[in-house]
Amino acid sequence: MKLTILGCYAATPRSFTNPTSQVLEVKNHLFLIDCGEGTQMQLRRNKIKFSKIRHIFISHLHGDHFYGLVGLISTFRLLNREKELHVYGPKGIKEIITLQLKLANSWTNFPLLFHELNSKEPQLLFEDSAVMVKTIPLKHRIYTNGFLFQEKPGERKLLINEAVKYNIDVSLYNSLKKGKDVVSEDGELIENHLVTADPPPPKSYAFCSDTVFDPDIVPQIKHVNALYHESTFLESEMDLAFPTKHSTAKQAATIAKLASVKKLILGHYSTRYTDINLFRQEAETIFPNVDLADDGAEIIVE
Amino acid sequence: MKLTILGCYAATPRSFTNPTSQVLEVKNHLFLIDCGEGTQMQLRRNKIKFSKIRHIFISHLHGDHFYGLVGLISTFRLLNREKELHVYGPKGIKEIITLQLKLANSWTNFPLLFHELNSKEPQLLFEDSAVMVKTIPLKHRIYTNGFLFQEKPGERKLLINEAVKYNIDVSLYNSLKKGKDVVSEDGELIENHLVTADPPPPKSYAFCSDTVFDPDIVPQIKHVNALYHESTFLESEMDLAFPTKHSTAKQAATIAKLASVKKLILGHYSTRYTDINLFRQEAETIFPNVDLADDGAEIIVE
Repeated sequence: MKLTILGCYAATPRSFTNPTSQVLEVKNHLFLIDCGEGTQMQLRRNKIKFSKIRHIFISHLHGDHFYGLVGLISTFRLLNREKELHVYGPKGIKEIITLQLKLANSWTNFPLLFHELNSKEPQLLFEDSAVMVKTIPLKHRIYTNGFLFQEKPGERKLLINEAVKYNIDVSLYNSLKKGKDVVSEDGELIENHLVTADPPPPKSYAFCSDTVFDPDIVPQIKHVNALYHESTFLESEMDLAFPTKHSTAKQAATIAKLASVKKLILGHYSTRYTDINLFRQEAETIFPNVDLADDGAEIIVE
Repeated sequence: MKLTILGCYAATPRSFTNPTSQVLEVKNHLFLIDCGEGTQMQLRRNKIKFSKIRHIFISHLHGDHFYGLVGLISTFRLLNREKELHVYGPKGIKEIITLQLKLANSWTNFPLLFHELNSKEPQLLFEDSAVMVKTIPLKHRIYTNGFLFQEKPGERKLLINEAVKYNIDVSLYNSLKKGKDVVSEDGELIENHLVTADPPPPKSYAFCSDTVFDPDIVPQIKHVNALYHESTFLESEMDLAFPTKHSTAKQAATIAKLASVKKLILGHYSTRYTDINLFRQEAETIFPNVDLADDGAEIIVE
């Protein structure tokens, strides 16, 4: 799992900072998470092959999380995209995009499929043989979801030398990878664990932005390998966090601790702060393994 | 008149090129002309005091000319703007912006006034004591207007030494600037031309993007000090210009010549070309005074 931060600042884009957008590379997918203004430029600057994006997840309809979507869709059209594009986001997103395409007297030359969300319960949005994506309902000023990306357990790792030693026919290797016992050329039953090893444990990434401090999300994000949790403010601006339904770095760290995650990634910093290291320092008083999102940063989820 | 080019490329923004947007500074106004994605970042990068913008003119509803508008309006809201903002653009623009503000559960804290256009005749959009703005109907794939910005003749220039010599009371100086004859302290009628000089000639700027080659616009832009005319293509891609309703550099120069303008500014270059100097070279075969729009360029209209 590799996460590329395209933008990680709250509210308004500035000369050289970008609003929320991330790309998660996992099991041959490029998932785009949120799409603030300028995301398509950031995709280019970070040399991401964005024709590979087939699924876009929009957390909520505040501009700093989706104003770049219509431009990206238009660019896909101009680049003669043919592959399906799936957009998952709050109810209303389809009308916003289609109205603009209609007024430009244009339509996409690729299938554009909207999956509009309005449930307040976690929902499965996408699943294939290798990965699942679910919503994490969040509490913000308007209807908002985070997203949970989970790898499925991979196939068992074949120990070739052992398989040869036990005289197992090559045609049975796939069964072994799937965890089955097999019968060798010598007619002997070979228990799977003798010729395979456990696959690497599946990884998971939770994206939680924007949200007020909300321990209700803890069960759903328990033990994830990486949690991105918004920290718009520091504790010194605590009085602003609750009324705007945002979190402080300390609150984000508290959620990380309660959920026993492996790593906390902070982001969605208010542009009032000039030094984002203050967010890390504050979070580390609660939780040890803290990373800072920053525009252009690549973070390996381990 | 000072023109700042925020973006001048066609179709899709790239890592370091921006879609159409310009700021025209004239007689204490900052007029924003078109507003492609990323315009607010470009305003910041070019250190333009964008709270001073009170009038935004949108030529047409293709994304590379207006996808940055909703973000700019949202930023004005976050910056607690109080001053009126007037948006002039094709019918439909109000619905696009208001739908997005409504779904974000927000509204502006300043008066946001839309002036929707659908006339195919030139219209007066704005006028005060110093300047007028009119539409220039253009022919493109969808309903499109260019804009003509015209200074009004200024007050006559008072020749102080002469006024003193003729013993004219200070209270009459304003009448002199308005071109009136006055009576001196000695009871003598003083003809205006004796104590004033002609004001500098009023300047004018015509913005014409996007448009097919169309000599019908010539009477309206006759003798302007500067004409921005799109040149999406070079003559070598002439076969693309007509079906897409765009112009070549040579066609832009032909319009400049027919209209006897002082200066031609080219822009809206297709991103297929790597060297924009080719546009100037081609145009100069027809018309001598050619400037190239480029992101961040400042052009004085003389």
